[in-house]
Amino acid sequence: MRNICMIVSYDGTSYSGFQTQINQKTIQDVIEEKLERITGENIKIISSGRTDAGVHARAQVFNFHTNSSISSERWCLAINDWLPKDIIVRAAFDVPLDFHARKYAKSKTYVYSINNHRYKDVFKQKYQLHFPRKLNVEEMKTALEAIKGEHDFTSFCSLKSDKTSHIRTIHRATLEEYKHSDLEHRIDITISGNGFLRQMVRIIVGTLLEIGAGKKKSEDMITILNAKDRLKAGPTALPDGLTLWEVQYDIIDKKML
Amino acid sequence: MRNICMIVSYDGTSYSGFQTQINQKTIQDVIEEKLERITGENIKIISSGRTDAGVHARAQVFNFHTNSSISSERWCLAINDWLPKDIIVRAAFDVPLDFHARKYAKSKTYVYSINNHRYKDVFKQKYQLHFPRKLNVEEMKTALEAIKGEHDFTSFCSLKSDKTSHIRTIHRATLEEYKHSDLEHRIDITISGNGFLRQMVRIIVGTLLEIGAGKKKSEDMITILNAKDRLKAGPTALPDGLTLWEVQYDIIDKKML
Repeated sequence: MRNICMIVSYDGTSYSGFQTQINQKTIQDVIEEKLERITGENIKIISSGRTDAGVHARAQVFNFHTNSSISSERWCLAINDWLPKDIIVRAAFDVPLDFHARKYAKSKTYVYSINNHRYKDVFKQKYQLHFPRKLNVEEMKTALEAIKGEHDFTSFCSLKSDKTSHIRTIHRATLEEYKHSDLEHRIDITISGNGFLRQMVRIIVGTLLEIGAGKKKSEDMITILNAKDRLKAGPTALPDGLTLWEVQYDIIDKKML
Repeated sequence: MRNICMIVSYDGTSYSGFQTQINQKTIQDVIEEKLERITGENIKIISSGRTDAGVHARAQVFNFHTNSSISSERWCLAINDWLPKDIIVRAAFDVPLDFHARKYAKSKTYVYSINNHRYKDVFKQKYQLHFPRKLNVEEMKTALEAIKGEHDFTSFCSLKSDKTSHIRTIHRATLEEYKHSDLEHRIDITISGNGFLRQMVRIIVGTLLEIGAGKKKSEDMITILNAKDRLKAGPTALPDGLTLWEVQYDIIDKKML
């Protein structure tokens, strides 16, 4: 018996998220079907965690147990031959038998990309939220500081969450603005933490956009956090702009990601 | 009568190039049809030059004459309302009546993007050539030096060219490698010149790839150039990786591009 870990990229546009759901087309279903085709085994994969419908991943991580003797070199070529264009396995390697992609994950990084230009970007429109209104970026940066550290994120969590604890720790929360010429104006919000609740990044971004647009103030971020009430936060930003950037593990070398 | 100049981005994947051709779907046709819808006039646009089937543009430039009184602010909104998702007008402004997007173009810049990673990149596959074999990047850089300056580019020009002179001047020819982690390995080749022949950038890139892969040597670039014979150069690289990056004019401020 072996335990194989894979790093996968996907364009989530056409899927109902990563995790298997009844009567939905998910990334997990597609991957498991291809693994079954290759190995002849009924394989169940364990991911670092689900991503919502429409959310993308640059480097999602999952593992599975198999008796197959396929070399780690051949796994990627074999599965990529079968996978559709919007899912690509980028690395595969043997890990200790007890490795579990969700339980062993130390932290995750998400990037939310906003196109703040007046017009859409032809090449990135599937991976950005187009928000053409003027934004006060300094106010957004100040607000973002408030979510760093350990907090109860109930206000920034879908009411459909099934988690008993809403306490999570955010290690990094940054906003970077790219404005190389009059043709582009992109804002990337990067958030790393030890775990994320359902729709958490999207609700944080939806709230930041209200702050940037002047509907809320940067100080409101702390008030909203303390209220532990989803209704106090802003709307859930569209999934298009969100990408699971990477998942950190002690056993995976940082330079691989 | 006014002369309007527009800057347009397009994903060329689904088009038979920019310029109108009988029984083909081209970017020019789509734009002219929408301009007619907006103005009620039978408008013919003049571009900086054609792009081949499948080639993209970040900032192609064209102009047209019209009697319409639409403000320069409204042009983009009006036409983008009608254009398909893969064509977006990013700027529109009045220019002197004699301005001509082809004749007034001072130089053009193309970027050819190669994904040299073992696997495709989910998010950029429509805009890259996937070339997974190992490349000697230093040899490619040396070869690229040979095309700088004024030369007869007959060897790097499609046999179907209808131009009488094949002499062009290349101002810039650079190769940049991006390798932030084991998940990506991108090579961007940027070429600026006072004009380009049919398939010129793609044949240069096809030849560079043969040099990088060891089939030809960097010194061969000069021999090929001097031969003035298309058959001496490498194959025409696929259009997918090629993007018309920008077109420079005296009257258009560089920061707009």
